[in-house]
Amino acid sequence: MKNLKDLGERKVIELIWKRIRKFPKIFPENVLDDVSAIEIDNDVLAVLKTDMLVESTDVPPQMSFWQIGRKAVVMNVSDMAAKGVKPIAMLVSLGLPKNLTKKEIEELIDGIEETAKEYGMYIVGGDTNEAKEIIVDCFLFGLCKKEEFVSRRGAKPGDILAVTGEFGKTAAGLKMLLEGMDAPEDISKSLLDSVLMPKAKLKEGLALAKSGVITSCIDSSDGLAWSLYELSKASNVGFILDRIPVAPEVLVFAEIHDLSAFELCFYGGEEYELVFTVKPEFWSSAVKAVESVGSHIIKIGVVIEEPKIEVLVDGKRITVEAKGWEHFKS
Amino acid sequence: MKNLKDLGERKVIELIWKRIRKFPKIFPENVLDDVSAIEIDNDVLAVLKTDMLVESTDVPPQMSFWQIGRKAVVMNVSDMAAKGVKPIAMLVSLGLPKNLTKKEIEELIDGIEETAKEYGMYIVGGDTNEAKEIIVDCFLFGLCKKEEFVSRRGAKPGDILAVTGEFGKTAAGLKMLLEGMDAPEDISKSLLDSVLMPKAKLKEGLALAKSGVITSCIDSSDGLAWSLYELSKASNVGFILDRIPVAPEVLVFAEIHDLSAFELCFYGGEEYELVFTVKPEFWSSAVKAVESVGSHIIKIGVVIEEPKIEVLVDGKRITVEAKGWEHFKS
Repeated sequence: MKNLKDLGERKVIELIWKRIRKFPKIFPENVLDDVSAIEIDNDVLAVLKTDMLVESTDVPPQMSFWQIGRKAVVMNVSDMAAKGVKPIAMLVSLGLPKNLTKKEIEELIDGIEETAKEYGMYIVGGDTNEAKEIIVDCFLFGLCKKEEFVSRRGAKPGDILAVTGEFGKTAAGLKMLLEGMDAPEDISKSLLDSVLMPKAKLKEGLALAKSGVITSCIDSSDGLAWSLYELSKASNVGFILDRIPVAPEVLVFAEIHDLSAFELCFYGGEEYELVFTVKPEFWSSAVKAVESVGSHIIKIGVVIEEPKIEVLVDGKRITVEAKGWEHFKS
Repeated sequence: MKNLKDLGERKVIELIWKRIRKFPKIFPENVLDDVSAIEIDNDVLAVLKTDMLVESTDVPPQMSFWQIGRKAVVMNVSDMAAKGVKPIAMLVSLGLPKNLTKKEIEELIDGIEETAKEYGMYIVGGDTNEAKEIIVDCFLFGLCKKEEFVSRRGAKPGDILAVTGEFGKTAAGLKMLLEGMDAPEDISKSLLDSVLMPKAKLKEGLALAKSGVITSCIDSSDGLAWSLYELSKASNVGFILDRIPVAPEVLVFAEIHDLSAFELCFYGGEEYELVFTVKPEFWSSAVKAVESVGSHIIKIGVVIEEPKIEVLVDGKRITVEAKGWEHFKS
C-alpha cells in the first residue's frame, strides 16, 4: 500500500484536487494558483491564502520564536505579493506544545504581529490548541480588482522573463544551519538572514500588478526551477534563460565548499522572490514601477513556445530540471 | 517561569489579544466573537473563521479518517451558524504524518469534502505539510449583510434564553470512548454518534438570523456552561434557567454510572448546539423560523440584569460554574 512518503506532496495535492468539487466562482477558473480568488461581484475578488508552518519541517533549530512567527507570516504574504493582492486581515491558528513558556509564546506572537504590521495587515482572529509541535497556520484575506489580479497563466512567447532578486542564499544558509557548513564573516549574515529573516516582495508585487504590464507571476518558495515549471505548465509555454540570477555571496560559498552554484540557485526553496513575465514593449514601465517603490527587477530570459526550460551557458543549452523542495519525500 | 500548562488556553488568548493592534474595520468593534467579521462596504461583512483540529487533543482513537475530516469541518461551520452566516468557500491546511497510507488520506479528504458539500461549501484551496500528528485546519469564508449578523452582545434583560437541542450526549459519548464506560444498546449509537458524527446547526442559525428576532447567539462547543458565561460577559447580563436541557439518553447513562446528569449537561464540550436569546414578543416567530427548516428550539430560561447564571431546581437556585473544556490545562 502506498503511503505519503512514496507519493510526495505534489501527488497528494493532485489526489485532493481530483476528489473535490470545483467552485464555479473561483478565479481564474480551474487553475491551482498561489492563492484562491473568489468572484464576489463583477469587479471584485475576495482573495484567500493559507500556508502552514510546521516546527519539524519548517524551523531550523537556530530560529528564534520571534523568527518562527515572522516566517509563518512571510510565506503567506509572498503568495499574495505574487498575485498583486494586498492582504488586509489575517487569522492565526496556533498549535503549541504545553511546555512552552509564557515568554516564548509572547515572542512568537510578537513575531507574528510585528510582521503583520510590516506588511500592513491586522490579526483579526484565530485559534489556540495544544499540539505535539509548534504549528503556526496563517489565513490571509484581501480584496482585489479582477483586472489587477495576476495569475500564473498569461505568459506568451516573446515575453520577458524576470525576477525581483537573486537566488541561492537560502539554500546556502540552510547548509550552514543544518549541515554546519561555514562561511566568511562578510557573507555569513546575509546567507543566514535569508533563512531566519525572510522578506516577502509585497510592494514589488503590488507595483507590478498596478502597472498592468506583467502577464504572469509566481513566488519562488518551492525553488526557482520548480516555480519556472509551474509557470510554464499554467501558461503552456517554456523559457530560455540567458542569465543565471545567482547571488554573489552564493558564488563565494559554492567555491569554498565545492558546491554547484547552479544547483544552489535553481533547486533551493523557501526563497521569496517573484518570478514573472512582462510584455517586451512594456519592460521599461515594469522597471519604473518597481523602482518607484525603492526596489529593482532583473531580466533573466525570454518566454518560448516549446514547453522546455533551458539556460544558455557559454553558448550551450543546459536543461533546468523539474525539481525542488517537496514535503513527505525528504 | 509560567508555561502554557499553568496559563491555560483562555489566558493565552487574553495574552495574544493584549499584544495585537485592533483592526478598525472589525465588526462588531473590539469583541472576541465566534468568527471574525470585516466591513467591506457599508452593508456587507466578509466573515472569516478558523478552528484547528489536532489529532492528539481532538480525535478519540475510535474515530475514522472520514470522521476526522467531518469533525474538522463541523467545528468551523458551527461558529458560522451561530452568527447567521452562510459559509461559501473553505481552505484546508493539512499536517500529515508521512506514514499515512493513500487510502487513509483519501478517506480524510472525502470526510472533509462530503461534509463541506453537506453545508453548501466548496474547498477552494489549502496547503499540505508533513507533521508529527494529523492537523486539519479549515478556514471558512462567507459574506453576510451587516444587519443579519448575530453577535454575542445583544442580549437584554427579559429576553428568552433558548437552545437548538439537548445536551450531555457528547460528554457521555466521550466517557464511553475514552474511559471504556458502556451504555445500553438502544442509546449507545446516539451517544457515540454525537462525538463521531457531529452536526452543525447551520440551517437553524441561518433561519434564526434571517428572522431578525434573536438578540445574541453563540455555539456551545466549549460546553453549555462556558457558552452561557461568554454570552453573559459579552452582553453584560445574566441568566436564570428554569429547564435543564439534558438529553434523555444522558439521564439513563448518568443513572447507570452514578454520574451527575447536571455535570454532563453543563460542563461537557464539543457539542454544536446554538445558545441564543430572543425578544419575548417574537418567540413564536423564532419557533416558526426554525420549524420551517424542519427543526425545533427549546426555551430554557430568561435573561436577567445581574451577571450571574443560576438554574431553578425544585424551587432552589443552583449556580452554574464558569467551567468547561480548556486546552493546555487538561
